[in-house]
Amino acid sequence: MTIERIEVSKRLSEAAVHGDTVYLCGQVADDLKADIRQQTREVLANIDAMLARAGSDKSKLLAATVYLKSIEDYRAMNEIWDAWTAPGAAPARTCVGGVALFSPEALVEITVNAAR
Amino acid sequence: MTIERIEVSKRLSEAAVHGDTVYLCGQVADDLKADIRQQTREVLANIDAMLARAGSDKSKLLAATVYLKSIEDYRAMNEIWDAWTAPGAAPARTCVGGVALFSPEALVEITVNAAR
Amino acid sequence: MTIERIEVSKRLSEAAVHGDTVYLCGQVADDLKADIRQQTREVLANIDAMLARAGSDKSKLLAATVYLKSIEDYRAMNEIWDAWTAPGAAPARTCVGGVALFSPEALVEITVNAAR
Repeated sequence: MTIERIEVSKRLSEAAVHGDTVYLCGQVADDLKADIRQQTREVLANIDAMLARAGSDKSKLLAATVYLKSIEDYRAMNEIWDAWTAPGAAPARTCVGGVALFSPEALVEITVNAAR
Repeated sequence: MTIERIEVSKRLSEAAVHGDTVYLCGQVADDLKADIRQQTREVLANIDAMLARAGSDKSKLLAATVYLKSIEDYRAMNEIWDAWTAPGAAPARTCVGGVALFSPEALVEITVNAAR
Repeated sequence: MTIERIEVSKRLSEAAVHGDTVYLCGQVADDLKADIRQQTREVLANIDAMLARAGSDKSKLLAATVYLKSIEDYRAMNEIWDAWTAPGAAPARTCVGGVALFSPEALVEITVNAAR
């Protein structure tokens, strides 16, 4: 099977596609000053954009891992997440909190894989 | 390849199956008052049950990530885990501790994927 | 599709290979007294060795998750990581810190999957 990569740097590919399985790197918000709801919206918008570039979309999500700086943000993140998922097509999800992300201002990072 | 989903809500699918690869959502214990050994037993029973519904079983596990609230529970969790795995068929595993799960009472959450 | 396993114990397989997808267990350093740079070098050498045994190599990495004990080690880990990745072939990567690994001396653990 072929491997395709999108936006490759020395550190990472924004996406790696193996056959018809798409792996995205952990997506974060653009505005790290924003609150958890806005950061979650931006993370999900970035996932949508990157999946589109990889020839997929959120209706084909397979698995997702949500990393939260603070588990106190669980409810607010879910509020945005639940409104975003495609009907009948939410991924198998895991969520952990209390982790340190690449910046102390980053409140949420989400890693997904998807079919295409 | 087809995508099948089991027990889909707005938030997540309990399982997503892509071709012959099964992804389960993070499994937790039913009784969150239980100690680490009992919670681990219940998590593994839930994995068994969900793999069965997806047409797989623990002898086909590929990868697993174990999330512990406290790394102090590493030994007790492993005691139950080691007794559970199928002979010659343990998955590639990663374990991290010190993370906050969806409830402060949840001591362990395990995410797996498997072949079927 | 076939499942192959490398170095299987009751707890884990060092690698599980499903068709042409390789999953490695979380790799750690050999010398846990070493600093973050040396531990990262050893983790990456162990990934190289295990991928080779599974019939793959770092140019075929798909996804990676880096777990750091302290996010303060982010820059030093990246320095070694960035010099290691194959040109144009870095995986989709996620990095989280502030987690407890199997030993208090372990500073970094990395989990990858790859094509072969």
